[in-house]
Amino acid sequence: MSHNPTQQNLSPATKLRALLENNALGFIMEAHNALSAKLATDAGFEALWASSLTLSASMGLRDANELSWSQVLDLVDPMLEFVETPVLVDADSGYGDFNIFGRFVRKASERGVAGVCIEDKAFPKRNSFANTSHELADIDDFCGMIRAAKDQQNSDEFCVVARTEAFVAGAGLSEALERASNYEVAGADALFVHSKQKTAFEIESFCRSWNGNIPLVIAPTTYASTPTADFVRLGIAAVIWANHGLRAAIKAMQDSYQQIAAERSVAGLEGNITSVSELLDITGTEDLIKKQDAYRPPIKKSGS
Amino acid sequence: MSHNPTQQNLSPATKLRALLENNALGFIMEAHNALSAKLATDAGFEALWASSLTLSASMGLRDANELSWSQVLDLVDPMLEFVETPVLVDADSGYGDFNIFGRFVRKASERGVAGVCIEDKAFPKRNSFANTSHELADIDDFCGMIRAAKDQQNSDEFCVVARTEAFVAGAGLSEALERASNYEVAGADALFVHSKQKTAFEIESFCRSWNGNIPLVIAPTTYASTPTADFVRLGIAAVIWANHGLRAAIKAMQDSYQQIAAERSVAGLEGNITSVSELLDITGTEDLIKKQDAYRPPIKKSGS
Amino acid sequence: MSHNPTQQNLSPATKLRALLENNALGFIMEAHNALSAKLATDAGFEALWASSLTLSASMGLRDANELSWSQVLDLVDPMLEFVETPVLVDADSGYGDFNIFGRFVRKASERGVAGVCIEDKAFPKRNSFANTSHELADIDDFCGMIRAAKDQQNSDEFCVVARTEAFVAGAGLSEALERASNYEVAGADALFVHSKQKTAFEIESFCRSWNGNIPLVIAPTTYASTPTADFVRLGIAAVIWANHGLRAAIKAMQDSYQQIAAERSVAGLEGNITSVSELLDITGTEDLIKKQDAYRPPIKKSGS
Amino acid sequence: MSHNPTQQNLSPATKLRALLENNALGFIMEAHNALSAKLATDAGFEALWASSLTLSASMGLRDANELSWSQVLDLVDPMLEFVETPVLVDADSGYGDFNIFGRFVRKASERGVAGVCIEDKAFPKRNSFANTSHELADIDDFCGMIRAAKDQQNSDEFCVVARTEAFVAGAGLSEALERASNYEVAGADALFVHSKQKTAFEIESFCRSWNGNIPLVIAPTTYASTPTADFVRLGIAAVIWANHGLRAAIKAMQDSYQQIAAERSVAGLEGNITSVSELLDITGTEDLIKKQDAYRPPIKKSGS
Repeated sequence: MSHNPTQQNLSPATKLRALLENNALGFIMEAHNALSAKLATDAGFEALWASSLTLSASMGLRDANELSWSQVLDLVDPMLEFVETPVLVDADSGYGDFNIFGRFVRKASERGVAGVCIEDKAFPKRNSFANTSHELADIDDFCGMIRAAKDQQNSDEFCVVARTEAFVAGAGLSEALERASNYEVAGADALFVHSKQKTAFEIESFCRSWNGNIPLVIAPTTYASTPTADFVRLGIAAVIWANHGLRAAIKAMQDSYQQIAAERSVAGLEGNITSVSELLDITGTEDLIKKQDAYRPPIKKSGS
Repeated sequence: MSHNPTQQNLSPATKLRALLENNALGFIMEAHNALSAKLATDAGFEALWASSLTLSASMGLRDANELSWSQVLDLVDPMLEFVETPVLVDADSGYGDFNIFGRFVRKASERGVAGVCIEDKAFPKRNSFANTSHELADIDDFCGMIRAAKDQQNSDEFCVVARTEAFVAGAGLSEALERASNYEVAGADALFVHSKQKTAFEIESFCRSWNGNIPLVIAPTTYASTPTADFVRLGIAAVIWANHGLRAAIKAMQDSYQQIAAERSVAGLEGNITSVSELLDITGTEDLIKKQDAYRPPIKKSGS
Repeated sequence: MSHNPTQQNLSPATKLRALLENNALGFIMEAHNALSAKLATDAGFEALWASSLTLSASMGLRDANELSWSQVLDLVDPMLEFVETPVLVDADSGYGDFNIFGRFVRKASERGVAGVCIEDKAFPKRNSFANTSHELADIDDFCGMIRAAKDQQNSDEFCVVARTEAFVAGAGLSEALERASNYEVAGADALFVHSKQKTAFEIESFCRSWNGNIPLVIAPTTYASTPTADFVRLGIAAVIWANHGLRAAIKAMQDSYQQIAAERSVAGLEGNITSVSELLDITGTEDLIKKQDAYRPPIKKSGS
Repeated sequence: MSHNPTQQNLSPATKLRALLENNALGFIMEAHNALSAKLATDAGFEALWASSLTLSASMGLRDANELSWSQVLDLVDPMLEFVETPVLVDADSGYGDFNIFGRFVRKASERGVAGVCIEDKAFPKRNSFANTSHELADIDDFCGMIRAAKDQQNSDEFCVVARTEAFVAGAGLSEALERASNYEVAGADALFVHSKQKTAFEIESFCRSWNGNIPLVIAPTTYASTPTADFVRLGIAAVIWANHGLRAAIKAMQDSYQQIAAERSVAGLEGNITSVSELLDITGTEDLIKKQDAYRPPIKKSGS
C-alpha cells in the first residue's frame, strides 16, 4: 500500500480507475471531511469513499438525502483541496433524475472528484442498514441515469460505479444479476454489489454467477469478519471500508467528553490525544508562516 | 453538570448568558460539527465553542481566516439544527470591519447562535499558537466592532465576548487591562483573556488587577495542568476547552486507519468503535422511519 | 396599495396571511433576487413571489429543480435581509418527500420566509408551460407533505399554499376539485389553482364549483388579458404576477447590450437607464458611509 | 464583434488573454448573473465583467465586501456553467491578504474563471463612486498579492489585472505611474487605471506618461461621453462597460412594477416584455424535454 512516485502527475480519476482495473485488491477508505481524508491518506490508503452516511452524520443528519446534492458537493470540495488521493463520492440514488444527476457528475468531475457511485433505489433514499423497506429503482430509469452520467463526465477516466441494492431489498440473486448486466451495458465502469448479511454468502453467490467484464466492488460492513483473502479469491476489485473512520472518531469523542466532564479538567487527556502543534502541522501552518514572510512586507510597528 | 428541565424553553442566548453570569464556574466545550456538538451535549456540557481552529482544521484549512465568514455560518448552521445547547462562535478578529462583523452578528443571532467571540487582532488573524508575530488591533477600531455587534444582535440576551490577545502578542499586563476596560465600556458582555504560557501566571496577574464588572472567560490549552480549583478561586466565569474533541478524534482516526491498513481488515476494530446501529441512532434514524409511516402512504408494489 | 404604518411590527408571515385572508384582492409580485424584491416593494406591492422559474432562469437554469432546495434557500436569504415585504417561496413539488420538504419549511420559516407554495407534481418538476407531459403526485403522498410542512413551520402564521396542477396536466375539473378538498383537509392555508389556458375558463369553472373555506390564489400568466375585475367577482383572494419583473429586465438588457455593442459606446444609454448614484442609493451606500464615521476612527494618514 | 469559430476550443483564459493582448480595442461587458452573461454574449460581447458593484446590488448589498469571497465564487459559478465567454471577476481589494487572495485565484481559475481584477485599496473596500475617502494599499503588500495570485493560478493563460485607484484616491499621476510600474514588475498581466472624473483627462495623462509593456484597461463610467475613438488613439487594450446591464434592468423593472401596480393588471406589458416561451428558450428548456425522452423511459400511466 506504498505510494507510487510515478503516480504523482496522474489525475485523481486515472488513479481511481487504475485501482479498480488492476489485478490487485484495492482498498477505499471512508472519509467524511478533509481532515479524515488526509489522515486516511497518511495511513496509506490510495482512494477515499465520501460516504453519504458519514457526511450526513457529521452534520447531524440522517442518511436520507437530508443533505442536498449541492451541499454534498460543498462538503466534498475541501477534501479535493486538501488531498491528491482520488475521492469516490457516494451519490445515493442520484438526487432525482438523469438531469440532476448529470449536472452533479459534470460539476463533481470538473472539481476533481474521481468517481461517483449511484445506487438503484428510489429518491429520497434510505440508508441500507435502516430498518425499513427498500424500494428498488426502475431498471430503465436507472440505466438512463448511468448514461447521463457518462455523457456529462468531464474526462474519459472518470468512474461511474453502479450499485445494486437487490440483495438489501430482498429481491434475490437473479434480480441482482439482471440489474448488474443492464448497468454494465448502460456504461457503468464498475459494479458495487451490496449486502447487509452477517456473512458474505450473498456476495459469494453473486461473484460465482456473474460473468460481466467490469470490476466488482463491495463494502463489508456487516460481514466484516470475512477474511480479506476470501475477497481476493472471489476476484473482487475493491473493498470499501465504508464508515469506520467516523465510528472511531465518535467513540473517542464520547470518551474524551465524558472524561473532561467528570474530571472538570483536560489535564488527564494530554499525551493521549493529538497535540496542538501536531494539529497545526497537519494543515501546514508552518508553511503559511513562511509564505507570509515571502509575500508580505514585515508589519510596521507603530512609532517606528 | 446535570440538565436543568426548567431551562427547556429558554433561548440559547439566555442559557449562555446565565452560564456566564451565574456564580458557578461554567464549562464550554469545543465542537467542530453537529455530531461533536451532540456528543458534547450528551456528555453534559451546557455550552459549546465553535472553534475557528477546529472548524478550519476539519476542513483541512489553517486557522487564518481561510474559511470565509459565510462559510463559518454555513458550518455552524447544522449544529444549531441538531442541538439546543447554546453555541458560542469563535468569530476570529471580526472578518474585516464593523460592517461585515455587524452583519455576521445579525445573521448569526437570527439563526440561533447564542454568542460570538471577537479577538483584538488584525484581519486576517493568525492562530494564537502559531509561531509568528501577532499584531494587535487598534483599540478604537475594535471598540467600534463591539458596538456594531451589540447594535446588530437580534435580542438583548445575545452575548458578545471580547477577547484580548495582549498577552499572546507580548504586550503585557497593563495593555491587557487597558484593553479590557475599553471593551467593557464599548459594551462587551464578557472578557476573554488569552495566554499561551505553560502556567496560569498571566491569567492570575490579570484577575488580581482587573476590577471590571463583566464575567471573565479563559481557554486553558497551554496551561491545562492548572487545577480547576484555581480558576474558581480567581473568579473565572467560564472555561473553554477549546480544541480537545477534535484532538481526540484525530488520534482515534489515525490509529484506526493505520490498523485497518496494516491488517487489511476492519475486523479488529469491531467492538472498539461505535456500532453502525448506534451511529444511526445518534441522528434519529428510527424517528425518521416512524414519521415515514405517519406521513407517507405505503409504497405501492407494482402489479399489486 | 399604500403602505399601512400599523403593519410595521407584524411578522412577514402575519402580513402574508392577512393579504390572503382579508376581503380585498391582493397582488403578489414576482421577484428573483433582493434587488427586484426591493423595486417591487417600492412600487407598492405588499407581498412577493420568489418564483422558481425566474430564480432558476436568472441563474441560467431550467425550471426543473436544477437548483437544489438549499440553493433556493441561499438565493432567497438576501431578499429577506433586504426587504420587510413578505416572501412566498415557490417550492416546486416539495423537493422529494415529506422529510426534505418539512426541513425546508422549518429552515425557511426560521429565516423569515412568510409562506411556501407546493404543487402536486412529481419530483423533479417540469415548468407548467414546458411542452411536455405533467405527471400529478399521488394525493395521499402530497397531503402527507402538506401535513409535514404544517408540523415543521416555526409559527402558526406561516402559510402553506397548496397548488394543484390538475388542469395543467389535463385531468379536468373534478380531479382539481377532489384534490383541492383533500389539500384543505390536510391543512393547506390557501389553494392555488393553476391553468395554462389563454382564457380564465378553467379558473372560472373551478371557482363556481369550489365550496371550500380556504382562500384561492391564481397566476394569470397565459390568461393575462382577463380583466382583474373578473377575479374580484370570482372571489379570488390573491393574484400572483409570476414572472413579469424578470421578463421586463431581460428585454431591457437585450436592448441595451445590443445598443452598446452596435455603438461601441454607452453614451447613448445615459439618461435612459438608472444612474450610478441611484444604484448606490438603492442599497443604502450613504448610510454605510455615515455608520463608518460612527463606528470607525478616522483613517490615520501615513506620516501624520 | 463577430464570433470567431476558430476560438471554439480555446479556454476562457486564453480568449481573455487574446482580447487583452491583440491590437484591437476589446470590450468587456458587465454581467451580474448567468442570465445577463448569456444576454451580453448573445449581443456579441467577447468577455464579461463580473462586477462587484452589480453582483452586490443584485443581492441588495453595498459594494463594500458585504459579499464574502466564497459567496462571490458561488454567484459566479452559474455564469461559468451557462456561457463559454471568458469572465473577468472583480475581486475588489483581494479579500484580506495574499493567502486568502491566492486561494481565491486558485479556486476561481480551477472553476473556469478567465481572470481576476484586484485593486489597490484597503480591505474592506468601498465603491470608488461612494462619497468617502479611499485609502490606498501599501505597494509592497499589494505586489505580494499579485505575486501570490500568479503563483496560485491553475494555468499560464489566466489573467491577473491590477487596478490602481491612485486617481480615485486623489493621489495624482506620479503615484499612479509608480504603482503601475511596480504592479507590472510584480507580474500583473494588465493594468486597469481608474478615474471618476467626468472627462478622460486623468486617463489621457496616464497613457501619455506610461511606458510599461502590459495592456491598459479602463472603465469609462463617469467619462462615458468620451468618444471610443479616443480610447483607440490612446492605445487602450480593453474597455469595461462596468454596470450598464444592471442599470438598464433596474429602470425596466421599476417602470414595469409601477405600471402593474397602477393598472392592477399585466395586460399592458404583454408584447413589450420578453415572452414566457422566449424565457424558456433562453435556458434551453426544449433541450431538456428532448433529453428526457432520450434518458428516461416514458411515464407509466397508472392503470395501464
